[in-house]
Amino acid sequence: MLELRLVQGSLLKKVLEAIRELVNDANFDCSSTGFSLQAMDSSHVALVALLLRSEGFEHYRCDRNISMGMNLNNMAKMLRCAGNDDIITVKGDDGSDTVTFMFESPTQDKISDFEMKLMDIDSEHLGIPEAEYHAIVRMPSAEFARICKDLSSIGDTVVISVTKEGVKFSTKGDIGTANIVCRQNSSVDKPEESTTVEMHEPVSLTFALRYMNSFTKATPLSSQVTISLSNELPVVVEYKIAEMGYVRFYLAPKIEEEEEETKPEV
Amino acid sequence: MLELRLVQGSLLKKVLEAIRELVNDANFDCSSTGFSLQAMDSSHVALVALLLRSEGFEHYRCDRNISMGMNLNNMAKMLRCAGNDDIITVKGDDGSDTVTFMFESPTQDKISDFEMKLMDIDSEHLGIPEAEYHAIVRMPSAEFARICKDLSSIGDTVVISVTKEGVKFSTKGDIGTANIVCRQNSSVDKPEESTTVEMHEPVSLTFALRYMNSFTKATPLSSQVTISLSNELPVVVEYKIAEMGYVRFYLAPKIEEEEEETKPEV
Amino acid sequence: MLELRLVQGSLLKKVLEAIRELVNDANFDCSSTGFSLQAMDSSHVALVALLLRSEGFEHYRCDRNISMGMNLNNMAKMLRCAGNDDIITVKGDDGSDTVTFMFESPTQDKISDFEMKLMDIDSEHLGIPEAEYHAIVRMPSAEFARICKDLSSIGDTVVISVTKEGVKFSTKGDIGTANIVCRQNSSVDKPEESTTVEMHEPVSLTFALRYMNSFTKATPLSSQVTISLSNELPVVVEYKIAEMGYVRFYLAPKIEEEEEETKPEV
Repeated sequence: MLELRLVQGSLLKKVLEAIRELVNDANFDCSSTGFSLQAMDSSHVALVALLLRSEGFEHYRCDRNISMGMNLNNMAKMLRCAGNDDIITVKGDDGSDTVTFMFESPTQDKISDFEMKLMDIDSEHLGIPEAEYHAIVRMPSAEFARICKDLSSIGDTVVISVTKEGVKFSTKGDIGTANIVCRQNSSVDKPEESTTVEMHEPVSLTFALRYMNSFTKATPLSSQVTISLSNELPVVVEYKIAEMGYVRFYLAPKIEEEEEETKPEV
Repeated sequence: MLELRLVQGSLLKKVLEAIRELVNDANFDCSSTGFSLQAMDSSHVALVALLLRSEGFEHYRCDRNISMGMNLNNMAKMLRCAGNDDIITVKGDDGSDTVTFMFESPTQDKISDFEMKLMDIDSEHLGIPEAEYHAIVRMPSAEFARICKDLSSIGDTVVISVTKEGVKFSTKGDIGTANIVCRQNSSVDKPEESTTVEMHEPVSLTFALRYMNSFTKATPLSSQVTISLSNELPVVVEYKIAEMGYVRFYLAPKIEEEEEETKPEV
Repeated sequence: MLELRLVQGSLLKKVLEAIRELVNDANFDCSSTGFSLQAMDSSHVALVALLLRSEGFEHYRCDRNISMGMNLNNMAKMLRCAGNDDIITVKGDDGSDTVTFMFESPTQDKISDFEMKLMDIDSEHLGIPEAEYHAIVRMPSAEFARICKDLSSIGDTVVISVTKEGVKFSTKGDIGTANIVCRQNSSVDKPEESTTVEMHEPVSLTFALRYMNSFTKATPLSSQVTISLSNELPVVVEYKIAEMGYVRFYLAPKIEEEEEETKPEV
């Protein structure tokens, strides 16, 4: 028996919109500590990890660990039927092949039950070790989204370079080149607009903009995004969810092509 | 000679947007009592009835009964050229094969005349007898529109079931099932947000969502919609127009299929 | 060496959006007096002329006259990456085959450099003599845009007729005819909403609405548009740019067809 009641139901709607572009089908894992998901994108290049801790729910009951395979587009179709102020409850019975999403309007005048069929999905849970990163950038999520979108109109890849002064995003394409530098800036009065760089070693890595743009679908979840970079590790793009958890995206850097190595960029 | 001057011209724009998805060509009937229309949709499944009473016009002159055949898409193209605050005057001369729409801006600085060719349209006027309904639901029109749209993402038909407690909208499709219950709720301070059920007999009827969604194009005309249901009659979905009249949509329930009858729903 | 710094960078963004529908590639001419462009549209029917005077820039350095061939769609792609409050600097080096657009956010926390390849474009500069016009109409640019769009839903051409009372825009098409009259109206308190007609001779000319609609892409540049008409000359549709200059569009009237001549319109 599973029953998770989330007062701020819009969070679950935003989580779905954040990940469904990357992942079609995935297992949601429910345990006494929280509601989580880990899945590769359909081309097996990027990894998505979601955690919603049990403490963040108004009511959280999960009698035994359960893994529920869902089609994320179908789930999103149902969650889109929830009002933005609705309370959402996720319900499952042991051994059932369905999950129920219940939406309650704030006035309790409208109650909706959406029952969705579950799927069997093979998945292996990857252990993601905690790691030390060479550089950690925290910046406004909307700014990061804007930069990824802007650079996509010029090129296909972005080079992210971190120095003490700030972070530089660069691309090049047929029509020219672009460099966008965001300087460190910890305005105390509006922390959600600050850009901070925590750097142990300078780092400069290349990523496919297509994936970065998919990650920025999570922008409505958080006013800040954290980008953790290291030469030997996939980048981690993290959006914190209120005080409940996070959505994290992992993406391996592109190996620079030979021609690029002889004329190093940035 | 026909001359109908409507100060709140946006009403006529909204009427056109409400019905032109269902009806391509129709006769507008003008008499001393009002401006009206009755037409089947192009697949001859739903019926639309419009009435704008003469008292609602600032100036209303109709010397003799006249029926003007119009293409509603062309008429909508012209009315879309009226500003939302414009005064609209509909003019026709006896024996003319055109109708003129005149738009006056509130300041009288801009005057537009749009002359449209009329068409000959065969139509038979159906007598719609006043009837007693088993249940009458009044609810916010935007809520009804939202429910029809939401359920369309899951299934093709909606079962509307009325009980003393409220009204339930249900559907099912490949990805699962959905039930939305709206409870009676007559908040005195905001009557336009109230939901009321007047029930003589419980009723549960199935309709094609495609038509229901077309009906909801009339949502901008009225904050409330009235749904009148009876086992032997087409449903009536009515949007009142200020103090002038109404747009009413009639749709026959779907006969439940054999498979459904053995496992009755709801 | 060229360096033009424009504090209100959004002006340059709006200029590009105003002209790029008509012109694909064009030479921007830079001299000590200003930044200008003159180009025929791709079908060689309409002419665009842009002027941004040097006094309008915060900093303006142009050591020698230079002509820079740019693809306007590529340039627009880059300028769209500038924030609306950004300061834009255009930079070029003598003999270089690139131009650089630098965008600075108001807080200086984000600095972007976009470098674009230049092109060789053959172009002849037409001398446009100052002329006397039979009639000059000044009206709100948004109103003019609305009228051109509205009439396009009825017909392909617009007849612009000027009389002492005002200006009339007319069209006809398969579904009927339309006439829109804007009366003179010099409301002193809101000059940007006034319509004024300066008429030496009545004039009535026919133009392709397709081009008129393209010209109205310049609407965000100015709250007023000036339409200068003469029987022997192309119409000039002018949008002033703050105190810096203008975008002007020139279009030859359509010669009325024989059938039209025997039944003159308007």
